[in-house]
Amino acid sequence: MALPDSLPKSVRIVEVGPRDGLQNEPGDIIPTEVKVELINRLSDAGLSYVEAASFVSPKWVPQMGDASAVMAGINRKSGVTYAALTPNMKGLEGAIEAKVDEVAVFSAASEAFTQKNINCSIKESLERFTPIMETAKANNIRVRGYVSTVLGCPYNGDIAPEQVAAVCRDMLDMGCYEISLGDTIGVGTPLKAKKMLEVVSKSVPVEKLAAHFHDTYGQALANLYAVIEEGIAVVDTSVAGLGGCPYAKGASGNVATEDVLYMLNGLGIETGVDLNKLVATSHWITQQLGRSNGSKVSLAIGCE
Amino acid sequence: MALPDSLPKSVRIVEVGPRDGLQNEPGDIIPTEVKVELINRLSDAGLSYVEAASFVSPKWVPQMGDASAVMAGINRKSGVTYAALTPNMKGLEGAIEAKVDEVAVFSAASEAFTQKNINCSIKESLERFTPIMETAKANNIRVRGYVSTVLGCPYNGDIAPEQVAAVCRDMLDMGCYEISLGDTIGVGTPLKAKKMLEVVSKSVPVEKLAAHFHDTYGQALANLYAVIEEGIAVVDTSVAGLGGCPYAKGASGNVATEDVLYMLNGLGIETGVDLNKLVATSHWITQQLGRSNGSKVSLAIGCE
Repeated sequence: MALPDSLPKSVRIVEVGPRDGLQNEPGDIIPTEVKVELINRLSDAGLSYVEAASFVSPKWVPQMGDASAVMAGINRKSGVTYAALTPNMKGLEGAIEAKVDEVAVFSAASEAFTQKNINCSIKESLERFTPIMETAKANNIRVRGYVSTVLGCPYNGDIAPEQVAAVCRDMLDMGCYEISLGDTIGVGTPLKAKKMLEVVSKSVPVEKLAAHFHDTYGQALANLYAVIEEGIAVVDTSVAGLGGCPYAKGASGNVATEDVLYMLNGLGIETGVDLNKLVATSHWITQQLGRSNGSKVSLAIGCE
Repeated sequence: MALPDSLPKSVRIVEVGPRDGLQNEPGDIIPTEVKVELINRLSDAGLSYVEAASFVSPKWVPQMGDASAVMAGINRKSGVTYAALTPNMKGLEGAIEAKVDEVAVFSAASEAFTQKNINCSIKESLERFTPIMETAKANNIRVRGYVSTVLGCPYNGDIAPEQVAAVCRDMLDMGCYEISLGDTIGVGTPLKAKKMLEVVSKSVPVEKLAAHFHDTYGQALANLYAVIEEGIAVVDTSVAGLGGCPYAKGASGNVATEDVLYMLNGLGIETGVDLNKLVATSHWITQQLGRSNGSKVSLAIGCE
C-alpha cells in the first residue's frame, strides 16, 4: 500500500466568504459593519488571503454596493492579502482607489456558460481583460484569474479538460499569476478532477493553479483531497459554506473553510489558520445572517 | 501524475438506513409499514444488501421493537441480502425465527467506548459472541462484524491502528466473514484512514474489510475515496444520511448513500444501484419522517 508522499507541506487557503459567499446569499443587504467585522475576524483567525469585496455595478449586484466602504473599514493586518473581484475597468479603478492588494478577473471553460453569465464568448471575455491587466500591472497589482465550469457546465454538461487548459493558459499568458479552477456547479468527482488537472497542468504549472470546488453534491472534500495528492496547494473556501452558485439547483455551493481546514489539519498540512477561532467566526456570521451553518465541522464542534 | 489504477471495478453498498439510520433518529416510533416500504424501495433501487432491523430488547431500543414484523412484511427480492443486528443470543434466536439472511455483531477498538456503550471490556464483548457464532454457523447464517471507533473515540481520543487490527483479527478468527471498520464519531481524515487500513490489512485481507465512515465532520467521502484507492470495495451508507451516532455532538452521522453513489458513479465503479430511484426513496423517507434531507445529492437533484 502506497501512502502519498506527494502531499504539500502547506496549503494557502483563499477565503472567499466575504465576496463569493455573501454575494450569493439570499435576503437583505448585509450591513457594511458586519462585512468589516467578518473580514477582521477571518484575518484574526489566521487566514492570509481574504477576497473582501467585488467592485461591480450596484445595479447588478446590490449586495456588493459598499465595496469601497468595506475596504476602508477593515483593519489591514500585516501579511494578509485583501483582494477584490473586478470584472471591468470601472471596477478596477474603484479597487485601486480603495487600495486593494490584488484583484481577480473571471472567465469560464464553457462557451454556453460565458454567454449566459456575462453575455459574450470566452474569447471576448478574455479580450475585455486586456486593459484591466495593463492598468493592474502599471499599478503593481497582481491579478488572479478564475475559470468557471472546469468540471461541468449547467448548459453544456461535460467540459473537455483541453478546453479548460486552453483558457487557463490564455489567462496565464495575459498576466494572471494564478488560475483558480472552479467546479462552479459542484458536479465533479475525484478521478474527473485528477484527470482535468493532469491535462491542465501540462499547460499551466500546478504551482500556479488553485482549486475552487463547490460542495453542491457533497463531493468537494473528496475532490480537493484528490487534487492535493497531485500537488495543488491553494484552495478557495468560504467560512460556514456561505454563498454558492445561483446556477446550481442545490442548497449548497461553496465548500466550508472549516471542513477543508479540518481535513488539512488531519493530513498534517500547515495553513496558519486557527480552527477554533474560525468556528467561532462561522457561528457568529451565520447568527448575523440568520441562516443555518453550512459547515459540518462547525455544527459538530458547536458554539462555545 | 499517477492516476490510480487500483480502484475496484465494483463496490458493494451495504445500506444501513433502515437499522442504523432509523434506530438513531429522534422522535416518534416509526410505523412498521413505513419501514417495510423503505426496505422494499431500497431493494427496488438496486441495493443488494439491506440491514433491515435490529433484534434487541425493545426496553433499550424501542424503535426496533417491531423487527420481526418488519422482516415478515418485506418483499424478499431475489439476490438481496436482508441482514439484522443481533447483539445477543436472544436477538439471534429472534433473527433466525424471522428468517434473516445474515446477522451482525459489534465490538469496538476502544476499551472506554466498549465499557460505556455495552458495559464490558473488548475481550468480554468478543466472548459474548462465541455462542452467537456457534448457533449462527449451525444455522448456516453468515455473521458480519462491526468494529466501532477505528479512527477515534469520544472518550479515549486517538486509537492505535494496531488495536483496531487486533480486534478485527479476533472477530475474523471467531468466524465473521467480513469486518466493517466504523469511524463512529466521524473524526477521521483521509491519510489517517489510509494508515489505519495499511496496518489492519496486514492482519485481515482487504477483501474482508468494509468501511463504515460517518460524516459528522464532513470527511466521509474524502476518507472513503482514500480507502477505495487502497482496495476497499464494501461501503456502509444510509439513505438520506438517516441516523448517526448518539455519542457524537454534531447533527450528522451516517454518510448518505446517494452522495457515495454519486462519487462511485463518477469514478466509474459499478454498484448496480439506480441513482434516480434512490433519490426518490430518499425524498420519500425524509417526508415520512418530517426531517430534512442529509444528502447533498438529493438536495441538489431535488424532488421530481
